[in-house]
Amino acid sequence: MTHFESDYNNGAHAAVLQHLIETNDERTQSYGDDHFSGHARELIRKACHAPESDIYFLAGGTQTNATILDSILEPFEGVLCCETAHINVHESGAVEATGHKVIAVRPLDCKAGSVQDGKLHNADLRAWLDAYFADETAEHMVRPGAVYITFPTELGTLYSLSELQTLRRTCDDFGLLLYVDGARLAYGLAASPDVDLPSLARLADVFYIGGTKCGALCGEAVVFPHGNAPTHMLSRIKRHGALLAKSRVVGVQFEALFTDDLYLNIGRQAIRQAIRLREMFVNDYGFKLYIDSPTNQQFFIIPDADVERLCRKAGFETWCKIDEDQTAFRFVTSWATTDEEIESLNKKQ
Amino acid sequence: MTHFESDYNNGAHAAVLQHLIETNDERTQSYGDDHFSGHARELIRKACHAPESDIYFLAGGTQTNATILDSILEPFEGVLCCETAHINVHESGAVEATGHKVIAVRPLDCKAGSVQDGKLHNADLRAWLDAYFADETAEHMVRPGAVYITFPTELGTLYSLSELQTLRRTCDDFGLLLYVDGARLAYGLAASPDVDLPSLARLADVFYIGGTKCGALCGEAVVFPHGNAPTHMLSRIKRHGALLAKSRVVGVQFEALFTDDLYLNIGRQAIRQAIRLREMFVNDYGFKLYIDSPTNQQFFIIPDADVERLCRKAGFETWCKIDEDQTAFRFVTSWATTDEEIESLNKKQ
Amino acid sequence: MTHFESDYNNGAHAAVLQHLIETNDERTQSYGDDHFSGHARELIRKACHAPESDIYFLAGGTQTNATILDSILEPFEGVLCCETAHINVHESGAVEATGHKVIAVRPLDCKAGSVQDGKLHNADLRAWLDAYFADETAEHMVRPGAVYITFPTELGTLYSLSELQTLRRTCDDFGLLLYVDGARLAYGLAASPDVDLPSLARLADVFYIGGTKCGALCGEAVVFPHGNAPTHMLSRIKRHGALLAKSRVVGVQFEALFTDDLYLNIGRQAIRQAIRLREMFVNDYGFKLYIDSPTNQQFFIIPDADVERLCRKAGFETWCKIDEDQTAFRFVTSWATTDEEIESLNKKQ
Amino acid sequence: MTHFESDYNNGAHAAVLQHLIETNDERTQSYGDDHFSGHARELIRKACHAPESDIYFLAGGTQTNATILDSILEPFEGVLCCETAHINVHESGAVEATGHKVIAVRPLDCKAGSVQDGKLHNADLRAWLDAYFADETAEHMVRPGAVYITFPTELGTLYSLSELQTLRRTCDDFGLLLYVDGARLAYGLAASPDVDLPSLARLADVFYIGGTKCGALCGEAVVFPHGNAPTHMLSRIKRHGALLAKSRVVGVQFEALFTDDLYLNIGRQAIRQAIRLREMFVNDYGFKLYIDSPTNQQFFIIPDADVERLCRKAGFETWCKIDEDQTAFRFVTSWATTDEEIESLNKKQ
Repeated sequence: MTHFESDYNNGAHAAVLQHLIETNDERTQSYGDDHFSGHARELIRKACHAPESDIYFLAGGTQTNATILDSILEPFEGVLCCETAHINVHESGAVEATGHKVIAVRPLDCKAGSVQDGKLHNADLRAWLDAYFADETAEHMVRPGAVYITFPTELGTLYSLSELQTLRRTCDDFGLLLYVDGARLAYGLAASPDVDLPSLARLADVFYIGGTKCGALCGEAVVFPHGNAPTHMLSRIKRHGALLAKSRVVGVQFEALFTDDLYLNIGRQAIRQAIRLREMFVNDYGFKLYIDSPTNQQFFIIPDADVERLCRKAGFETWCKIDEDQTAFRFVTSWATTDEEIESLNKKQ
Repeated sequence: MTHFESDYNNGAHAAVLQHLIETNDERTQSYGDDHFSGHARELIRKACHAPESDIYFLAGGTQTNATILDSILEPFEGVLCCETAHINVHESGAVEATGHKVIAVRPLDCKAGSVQDGKLHNADLRAWLDAYFADETAEHMVRPGAVYITFPTELGTLYSLSELQTLRRTCDDFGLLLYVDGARLAYGLAASPDVDLPSLARLADVFYIGGTKCGALCGEAVVFPHGNAPTHMLSRIKRHGALLAKSRVVGVQFEALFTDDLYLNIGRQAIRQAIRLREMFVNDYGFKLYIDSPTNQQFFIIPDADVERLCRKAGFETWCKIDEDQTAFRFVTSWATTDEEIESLNKKQ
Repeated sequence: MTHFESDYNNGAHAAVLQHLIETNDERTQSYGDDHFSGHARELIRKACHAPESDIYFLAGGTQTNATILDSILEPFEGVLCCETAHINVHESGAVEATGHKVIAVRPLDCKAGSVQDGKLHNADLRAWLDAYFADETAEHMVRPGAVYITFPTELGTLYSLSELQTLRRTCDDFGLLLYVDGARLAYGLAASPDVDLPSLARLADVFYIGGTKCGALCGEAVVFPHGNAPTHMLSRIKRHGALLAKSRVVGVQFEALFTDDLYLNIGRQAIRQAIRLREMFVNDYGFKLYIDSPTNQQFFIIPDADVERLCRKAGFETWCKIDEDQTAFRFVTSWATTDEEIESLNKKQ
Repeated sequence: MTHFESDYNNGAHAAVLQHLIETNDERTQSYGDDHFSGHARELIRKACHAPESDIYFLAGGTQTNATILDSILEPFEGVLCCETAHINVHESGAVEATGHKVIAVRPLDCKAGSVQDGKLHNADLRAWLDAYFADETAEHMVRPGAVYITFPTELGTLYSLSELQTLRRTCDDFGLLLYVDGARLAYGLAASPDVDLPSLARLADVFYIGGTKCGALCGEAVVFPHGNAPTHMLSRIKRHGALLAKSRVVGVQFEALFTDDLYLNIGRQAIRQAIRLREMFVNDYGFKLYIDSPTNQQFFIIPDADVERLCRKAGFETWCKIDEDQTAFRFVTSWATTDEEIESLNKKQ
């Protein structure tokens, strides 16, 4: 049985695990002061072309989102995002638990049943912002302090460089911070024709480089590319329970991920497999795409008979019921997806 | 100049003020233990036909919503409401400040530009709930613990008894508490053909009787009609800064409001004036209704020329711009609105 | 039966009530924009000799402490105070409810059983601060952002001008804000030989002038004397449920309190009665003082036999059991305490 | 240079690392549903003789304390502990960040300058509880909901079984939950003559088995031994950012730790080295003990000259300055401390 349910159903990439093994007996400092974390920061700064970056290593995505948003927002501020944003849907209210409202922007065009693309559209964002700042009762409403986007999105889609630049301009026009959740960043960077780490570092006020879903056992690297981290970041992180005592665990892993382009290669490998799977499903099986995703999450509308057959070979998630006769399913590849695993889905098998 | 901007631009109803005056020199207990609060509770229990009620007096509406919701919800629970709900729009995130997500239910029918009626529709609510409880990832989402509605709504509209009963059934089906924000309750009860205090007490798990907007200087009475207040309510209220030391101030006012049907008469008086104003605007001026409200908030689409003329006589709020040529305005009556004030708006004046 | 249990067992001072009566029918703006609040702010600025003051009217003391502290502290900061501080003992954790630690400074000299004077001593505060800033692990501890003191203290005692200046210097040396809780300020100012409103305005970063316990039905005036209120104060106040819609209620009362020196006269009246009561108890009855308080809260060690006799004439609080044979009791006077009420305690009656 | 600064300056125990390596390529479920976590729970239940246990794996200690306390306390409840408790000192206010007060119990005997033993003494606890529940103003104070102790304590000391039973009785008498922070549990169990996992499981309402400091790269196992976990624990954990998506990482490590008595052997190894180090320092060097600790944290008063000499061979923490001439230092051993490392401290070297 092969598994395509998620990109966190695996261990660590061999090179990451190897680095943990070879450094295991070394004694280090803690709480982010270990030299592995130090060197990993240097490598990330280089990869981002952002030598002023403040970088922090946290353990997981939900923790990171809540900790960072609570750190960059004033207590009375909320965060804008699209309706499918992870912080709005699948974090059990972690951001609200820190006291902030998650403001999901309604699309201007909201035809019932349309398949959204999972992206925050600038037109929708600006419409919301124009309405808010024109509202005479704005003082009684939650003031937006930041915009949150995921790259790639929860539906696997990507913002183009141009779209990111436009969002950046909107944030600048309205005095908002732009925060990019990069839980699956490796896959996004690998699939994007024009967005790379340096552009992300130029355009975002803060973003995180996902480790857990991209080759690490655990760990996310938060980057404030302009040396603009809030004051007393260590205390802010600690009071959210996000400061790892044994920080070298994540430092070592990111040192490996950012050596010899491993992070990007991890992304490329998964995208390669995703493309193969997609071509197979579209061309051989004739499945329709539910969402046209260029990254490692692929969504298909699959007829019941095929679902039964595929179920016997592979594990994958039911995404959503579209109507009486159609259901969408999600297949996820990762750095760990082998050629054999993709081949096993072949119609002829 | 007459004023129709709000129903909290006035002092207290004469009878309420008189009772404050005549009791002023009496020494009382504090923190809710004073005999005025005690007697006011008895009067409210009688008026609600709910002898088991736990009743608490707080100072203001936003404070009440945040305190009560935080008291009836588990830490991981959120509250469902419609998009125009006060807690979702105009409380600067007071509910989120206590750690809970405000879940605004999207209407199933969301044609851009439609005028909503400010009500939470059962069909929309059930659709959301069915989807939530069918979602295999629900554990990662905010669990709903209560449904919040305002009576009357923020747009002046009313739920019929039948609609309340339907919402009650939905709450029962899904194990949710029903909380009714009665900031303008007097006006709702006066205008409603079928909802009275006893029905509210039967159908809601907790509701509050608004004082500030309905004849008091300040104060709201929270009612748990089935004696179902959470444990240690005084501590819960105090830690939200909502426990008045000089509780007799609100106790005395509610004692007056619930003597000789004053609360309902206050409502009737304002509705009478609202109807007169509405008839005048619709019949004499020919204005179209922006929202068909039966209560003390009235919304009209008024042509620019008329706006200028009315502005010279009265103060009223711009509600929203509908399109290039049309803007909606709100006129609010209260117990304090006199016949002369209504008459001053007469087209012939 | 006369009542000395508290200074919030009464209504409003006659002049305050009168002003509420005479302004009752006027229509005003809301949320602090009413002209009564505006004029009251001007009067307070004058009385404080602080023309740059930002002033906000809230409803009650606990609400004020939690709202203001959460507004002036960074999320990761805590507030220093002495062990008997109201925020540390009697607010049901309202400050912690906003996410901040209340750091009670241990007295260097802590002989068990000693009667404390309810004051934060500079030596104890400096010792704590020196230890904190010398601690290499300080980043893992809660960072202090402000110092909280009450004037008068919870035990009725007063800081001298010199003591306040010393605390000010300490705050400056360590970069801390000084916040003064003036729940009973009128009584403190009346009894203090050297501290007046202008000195408080000079030395504190923010303080509040208590209304509820000093002549008002409800209300406290928060003063940022140097125009140093945090940004977006209205939103910060609103999200704590502390923004009164009908703000004129508190504005009118403070307008009255700051006309014709009423606030100070209210204080002097209560102190006069407190002194009479004290002389009577010490000289005629021979009671020992439990705490040597110069303000309206008086504490005596009273033998059982006398307690019984006094109980028949007056209501007063048991303060604490000192040992097997001795208990301390508290008698509180206020602006409402009449000569007759004091006279009724006379030993000969 | 050898290192004795902490017990989290190392990687993972060889057996734990080996198990991560051999399971790395296996695909698993997530969020705690993976079979490694499942089997690790079984092993822990067995080791605790508590077959009904609810067990959750979190990433780190501070996160665990805040998440668990917020889950077992009502919003208005606080947690009692001793003054040196980790949650009171070194978690940057993580517990307060969730809205709860940390109530540090003052020792009845508080002679300035005495060396405390880091333990919560039952007499002090009962005195506090008796005073609280006898206080008529208790409703205005934070109500205690749980008692927090660390085993071993922050000063390396241990509660005897009898002391734990006494605390248990006190908790039962006052209706409090007993929560044991076992960040260094392996070392405590190894050094304790009478406390083992089954006794902890019998006496505590909830405790955690520390992984990070006891052989794991990361991870802590929270145990509710009586199947008494709060409802919806996954959502509670997730909203605190404490739910690891790749849960198998901690599951695998605890599976290794609870196979072949590894956890206890890890403890014994460290204690062996601690004893050797202690004997060397006390007998050969003649150092006085600052705290008489039986576990892996050892505290000595070391003269300056010796400090200089030791500094050249080893890294260790300055603990605190006792007076002008004496300073205390801490040496920490762990499962990773080798015979050579201890030998290197030999006076003759």
